[in-house]
Amino acid sequence: MLIKMYNDRIHRPELASKIITDFEAAALIKDGMVVGTSGFTKSGDSKAVLPALAEMAKENPLKITLISGASLGNNTDGKLADAGALHMRMPFQVDPVLRKHINNGNIYFIDQHLSETSEVVKADTFGDMDIAIIEACQILSDGSIVPTTSIGNSAVFAEKAKKIIIELNLAMPIALHGIHDIFSAGVYPKRVPIPIVIPDNKIGRTSIELDPAKIVAIVITDQHDSPADIAEPDEATTNISNHLLEFFNNEVKCGRLKENLMPLQAGIGKVANSVLRGFINSKFSNLTMFSEVLQDSTFDLIDAGKMNYASGSSITVSAKYREMIFNNLEYYKHKIVLRPQEISNSVGLIRRLGVISINTALECDIYGNVNSTHVSGTHMMNGIGGSEDFARNSYMSIFVTSSIAKGGSVSSIVPMVTHVDHTEHDVDVIVTDKGLADLRGLSPRQRAQVVIDNCVHEDYKAQLQDYFDRALLRGGHTPHLIEEAFKWHANLAEKGTMKFM
Amino acid sequence: MLIKMYNDRIHRPELASKIITDFEAAALIKDGMVVGTSGFTKSGDSKAVLPALAEMAKENPLKITLISGASLGNNTDGKLADAGALHMRMPFQVDPVLRKHINNGNIYFIDQHLSETSEVVKADTFGDMDIAIIEACQILSDGSIVPTTSIGNSAVFAEKAKKIIIELNLAMPIALHGIHDIFSAGVYPKRVPIPIVIPDNKIGRTSIELDPAKIVAIVITDQHDSPADIAEPDEATTNISNHLLEFFNNEVKCGRLKENLMPLQAGIGKVANSVLRGFINSKFSNLTMFSEVLQDSTFDLIDAGKMNYASGSSITVSAKYREMIFNNLEYYKHKIVLRPQEISNSVGLIRRLGVISINTALECDIYGNVNSTHVSGTHMMNGIGGSEDFARNSYMSIFVTSSIAKGGSVSSIVPMVTHVDHTEHDVDVIVTDKGLADLRGLSPRQRAQVVIDNCVHEDYKAQLQDYFDRALLRGGHTPHLIEEAFKWHANLAEKGTMKFM
Repeated sequence: MLIKMYNDRIHRPELASKIITDFEAAALIKDGMVVGTSGFTKSGDSKAVLPALAEMAKENPLKITLISGASLGNNTDGKLADAGALHMRMPFQVDPVLRKHINNGNIYFIDQHLSETSEVVKADTFGDMDIAIIEACQILSDGSIVPTTSIGNSAVFAEKAKKIIIELNLAMPIALHGIHDIFSAGVYPKRVPIPIVIPDNKIGRTSIELDPAKIVAIVITDQHDSPADIAEPDEATTNISNHLLEFFNNEVKCGRLKENLMPLQAGIGKVANSVLRGFINSKFSNLTMFSEVLQDSTFDLIDAGKMNYASGSSITVSAKYREMIFNNLEYYKHKIVLRPQEISNSVGLIRRLGVISINTALECDIYGNVNSTHVSGTHMMNGIGGSEDFARNSYMSIFVTSSIAKGGSVSSIVPMVTHVDHTEHDVDVIVTDKGLADLRGLSPRQRAQVVIDNCVHEDYKAQLQDYFDRALLRGGHTPHLIEEAFKWHANLAEKGTMKFM
Repeated sequence: MLIKMYNDRIHRPELASKIITDFEAAALIKDGMVVGTSGFTKSGDSKAVLPALAEMAKENPLKITLISGASLGNNTDGKLADAGALHMRMPFQVDPVLRKHINNGNIYFIDQHLSETSEVVKADTFGDMDIAIIEACQILSDGSIVPTTSIGNSAVFAEKAKKIIIELNLAMPIALHGIHDIFSAGVYPKRVPIPIVIPDNKIGRTSIELDPAKIVAIVITDQHDSPADIAEPDEATTNISNHLLEFFNNEVKCGRLKENLMPLQAGIGKVANSVLRGFINSKFSNLTMFSEVLQDSTFDLIDAGKMNYASGSSITVSAKYREMIFNNLEYYKHKIVLRPQEISNSVGLIRRLGVISINTALECDIYGNVNSTHVSGTHMMNGIGGSEDFARNSYMSIFVTSSIAKGGSVSSIVPMVTHVDHTEHDVDVIVTDKGLADLRGLSPRQRAQVVIDNCVHEDYKAQLQDYFDRALLRGGHTPHLIEEAFKWHANLAEKGTMKFM
């Protein structure tokens, strides 16, 4: 009976007997377990079993270690957090409820380079992985599964987990098969080179291999990914985009780049989307992308004929774009590929391909250090994500941010960042709405003056120059007034503004 | 005449006409030039032309941008600095005189990941490289040159520089030929995978290809490398070594490592040497090394039958070991290899091989951030070197340091490091003479308590616990008292000690 209903989705008939409800599947998860889940920037996540677990945990308390690709959608992280079901969470999240629990110390969180989660799992840092929950659109006859709108860490979870729960999502087109490129460099000490030399090299399988005997449950779902939040460009993001395009134009003029630039990576969000959209009316063409997330703007560039190919680990788009993409999958299959995040974010590949990375900073300091995670050095926002996989190893590492935040009470350029995610060694260019600082080939003292001259909001310029001038009197390779390096942040905490001059 | 004298060294006879004196060669270097030089951790450096340039600069002022592999020997950096001959220096130095000028702001310095200098040169960040000075032990008939005790960035300099000066060093055995493995992954956008899968894969040439027409001078020298400073193990370094060996033993017991561990990298210096020597009387065997610098302790391990193979970019040893190695080159040729630093420090290879990296911290904080360069956040010591090439990408990243310095007035474990070279994301294990903190799989609050419990000197334990306890009251994923995060350093500056409780 059942298998007839799903015979276009389950091509290994005996597995139909594994179909159970979301609550039955959730009941397989016990207190203290280490659980892996599909899901990368809200896409391809568990839409049934984890929410059911959150419900159940309200009655029957339990705590798990939950490891994902990146963020989950559908407020799942918040539901689990509020239900007290999370002991430890990694490697990334964007959920305001979970964030609150992390900052209160109720839930342990490991903020991690997205390329490294698979390493931690392979190294058995938390012991065995007990169970993995993986969204799929098909189960093939060899028992392998076709993922949906993301891959994330699903392949390594499928390999390492003792048991596997599959969420077979009927809302995900069968035609997604062929969009994935699943490859593993293997395990120590027998790892092999990853033979990708351009973004469109497909080197792997189109489905995730697994031992069908490990499949303990199949849960049928029919629900779309949470849509991406798309904010329209505003004056600040448009200015940032324009500064960056002007910079790229000049790089081409100087012969350092060609009009197809190098493979692009862009972080998630308003600024990155605005920058990518800026390419549509530029003279750049034959662009490619080697990134984590394929966003609305990626498809705009493809449709505009500006981008030839985009490689990522997830499709994270608005509802409108999702519909358009799903209706044209055969076309986009030749234009995009999804990879495991150990490949999309591979440090060696990012270096080899010469990626231009564009990521968002929470705050930058005058010497080029970047904080992308911790508000005032203590409170976690989302996490470092893949930004430093790219920034550290890219051909050119660009950070973008508005020069001010909170209506001007916060300057995004400060004397010293309160938490360092990207060190001065890994930041080439800083762009704010005020201008662009090209830090390449500059020593710290030179960098500081360029950042002050080009990136700082006028309300904070004199205050920052004053700090730097007085620090210079003390000397040092990287001059600082160590006792007042965080005075701006202390002033903000005390008086509600970083401004005191 | 001349060619007869050097016919075992110069196998392309017409090049003998290029032999000139060190001062004649130095005169080819003009004000404003970008100069590349061989030399990596004192080995294989320019021993004649750069010192001659320093002499000449006293009479005829000039300033150059000087790019090396890593540090130079023979006080060359200090002589150049005192002569006012340096405008900009990168990527690393260990010279006390140069350091003074850098911290005074007289000389611009770029502190750089050692894997990335070749990237900066290939990207023409400073424009064309005008001239390269490369030490060699032979010039072969095809015009290629055989480097000496290091490779560093010599291959990329030979490729990019418009002119080349060769220092043919007669003190370097001809038999060094065969010890090098020179390979380049190519240039963008056509880079290729580097096909190394174990440390002893040789994949390249044994000499550096270059266009013989670019050779403008050959200077004959006959001088050894500056010997490495070897400090005997003391109580602190022996304790560190013992803690680390115990940790490795336990990793083997838990099945995470085998008795040959994984390829080792160790930074330069007393602690690293002591740790490596600790392996001699351990149960570990069949060790390999994938590192930057091959030190005395590397050869001790090889001679003790403990280490099968060691890959690096330089041989930096004491005079006694140098003699022993030079007398047994045919033997060691099967045990060691020297590579360009873009290969020895390749981020992709370090990840692929699963290196265990052991580097020295200047200070660590309770959350696992490490400062390895800046005294009190402002004054440069040596530079980051290759430590973060390894720490960021290794299988396991270990940092070692004495728990106290300056007779106890400085604690190496502080609430917050004043400069971040290695972020919390990239530090797995911290070891002091007091104990070892295994930070793997821990969130920041957990890490802090383990570091306080295991690594801090007893004189600072209560003071650090007090900081952490009060920070916890404020909350946050990474609790801090932002206004007193650097109080320990301010107290040191004011009162000569970090101790105030």
